[in-house]
Amino acid sequence: MADQKFNSIQEIGFTGLINRFDAKLSHQRDDVVCGIGDDSSVVSAADNQLFCTTSEIFLEGVHFDLTYTPFHHLGYKIVTAAVSDIYAMNAEPQQVLVDIAVPNKYSVQMMEQLYHGIEAASKDYNVQVTGGDSTASQQILAISVTATGLVDKGRVVYRSGAKKGDVICVTGDLGGALAGLRILLREKKSWKDSGEQHFQPDLEKYEYVVQRQLVPKARFDIVQAFKKADILPSSMIDITQGIVNELQFLGNQSQVGMEIYSPAVPIAYETRNVADEMQEDVDKYAFYGGEDFEMAFTLAEEQVEKLKTEFEDFSVIGKIASKDKKLTINTGEDKSIEIDIFK
Amino acid sequence: MADQKFNSIQEIGFTGLINRFDAKLSHQRDDVVCGIGDDSSVVSAADNQLFCTTSEIFLEGVHFDLTYTPFHHLGYKIVTAAVSDIYAMNAEPQQVLVDIAVPNKYSVQMMEQLYHGIEAASKDYNVQVTGGDSTASQQILAISVTATGLVDKGRVVYRSGAKKGDVICVTGDLGGALAGLRILLREKKSWKDSGEQHFQPDLEKYEYVVQRQLVPKARFDIVQAFKKADILPSSMIDITQGIVNELQFLGNQSQVGMEIYSPAVPIAYETRNVADEMQEDVDKYAFYGGEDFEMAFTLAEEQVEKLKTEFEDFSVIGKIASKDKKLTINTGEDKSIEIDIFK
Repeated sequence: MADQKFNSIQEIGFTGLINRFDAKLSHQRDDVVCGIGDDSSVVSAADNQLFCTTSEIFLEGVHFDLTYTPFHHLGYKIVTAAVSDIYAMNAEPQQVLVDIAVPNKYSVQMMEQLYHGIEAASKDYNVQVTGGDSTASQQILAISVTATGLVDKGRVVYRSGAKKGDVICVTGDLGGALAGLRILLREKKSWKDSGEQHFQPDLEKYEYVVQRQLVPKARFDIVQAFKKADILPSSMIDITQGIVNELQFLGNQSQVGMEIYSPAVPIAYETRNVADEMQEDVDKYAFYGGEDFEMAFTLAEEQVEKLKTEFEDFSVIGKIASKDKKLTINTGEDKSIEIDIFK
Repeated sequence: MADQKFNSIQEIGFTGLINRFDAKLSHQRDDVVCGIGDDSSVVSAADNQLFCTTSEIFLEGVHFDLTYTPFHHLGYKIVTAAVSDIYAMNAEPQQVLVDIAVPNKYSVQMMEQLYHGIEAASKDYNVQVTGGDSTASQQILAISVTATGLVDKGRVVYRSGAKKGDVICVTGDLGGALAGLRILLREKKSWKDSGEQHFQPDLEKYEYVVQRQLVPKARFDIVQAFKKADILPSSMIDITQGIVNELQFLGNQSQVGMEIYSPAVPIAYETRNVADEMQEDVDKYAFYGGEDFEMAFTLAEEQVEKLKTEFEDFSVIGKIASKDKKLTINTGEDKSIEIDIFK
């Protein structure tokens, strides 16, 4: 049936797998402006507009854990994840389609909670839920979310536009979602170890980071600010796999190297507290922590002040460097770490 | 966390679940022309064009069985399923996005086979693969496919347009995919019973029906024929859950009753042979068998001859009746079966 060789996907990684397919998929259409490789696909619509589409799949046990995730939070979060990719193209999301595959162990009421979260997010992001397939599943809840949006041709922002001299910026603060996950996993372990059926963890002092994990918000405000300030970032990506990974994607697509100055990477006080409590390095949270749903973008240096007149919640963390295709992290202690930007 | 009530989804069914959500989802946008309830969503694009989007999820063990499904056939079939929904709007598909969640037991080579099938289908349907998320899965292969397409405003066809007096038509023949499934399941059982590791079933005499199950084709030809003949069907739906189910959807959305004449329902010789061999009623294959990916549509009676000048592979199987909201199946033996068209 299939080839007799067996190379595990771990050997090449999931990004490697996608790159491999992208190289093999040869069938192209003239109206497709951007295919695999950015936050969403881009197809030309009439009247100088572009249509962006993105889709993601979420599996119980891999992408979410229902032990500590309320269904309505899950519903909100999957919509956030989908529209975040549309915002990352500097586009306005219009619709989401949600497919769910549900095992018997979950009730209609639980699915209603999920939809309450989806509905709440659809209001916050002004998108309409326009499709929904639902089907049976044998063991796990599986959800797929598609979002589409529109952007004027002149205002679309790809991962590929970063230029030497541009500054690298991020919105908000990083690592909070991972800090929240650490707390939730610790509480889950306590609950399992306690052997009790009901367990009410005291999460009050961790509220900020737990919220960052359970109900992250997509940064539509930065997209609005770009419009108001009449600024176009040279490249943009949403931060879902940690800033280091995202900058590698940007650097790779833009064919540039980068330097970041680690003390400039914004980290919340609450995130630092969790790292201290866990006796872990908070920089690792900020650099590699996933699911923050903040935005990373590059900008001509002279536009930083202009953006600041409309929007304050961002930090300049580095600069686009020469074409040596390295991501250099300056720690501020006379040390620097060099990471290859993969092809 | 969730409501304390537990109603199983079986009690209301998956269509019931979607209807329930549709009723609850209140957030709407002006540019969304058609949300949940048709084959795809419809959003206005500029210049009198409409943008259609559809998404589906497929799980191993529920929607496909890798014991007898080669990966490249699976790849082809999921694309067929997605574009079929776009054709069912009388639209032209442009792109597909494929997300896969892969457990360790499957190799890179197997996923390449899957993508070969996706690529083959993308050529046949002239769509570009523009997105692909890939991620880990713990036990089963899960795939989600999104397709988008474009249609002129004046040529979009919904499920809701069927009018009294229209004839009901179907393309091709029905029940073949289920007949193929019956054969494959029988061979799978023989293989398991045999206790052998390798088993080469002799499927030659069942080639037609097995192909119908494993590599169904979406009916883009009928959409092309409508255009050439300058005909607009009053309603249309692709046949994925059996013609009886699909006509219930059409009847419900159009708020009409229907009569079909069962001897007119097209059934292939090879499908009849399988039903005979299995000692089963072939009408059940044709009425309730899923995954044929044929098209059901309604048409003003006088347009039937006009369509025939461009396209021959369709049958008139019945008529739209009064508003009593029944689907009446005349068996041709002085018997008729009445099925309520659910709300």
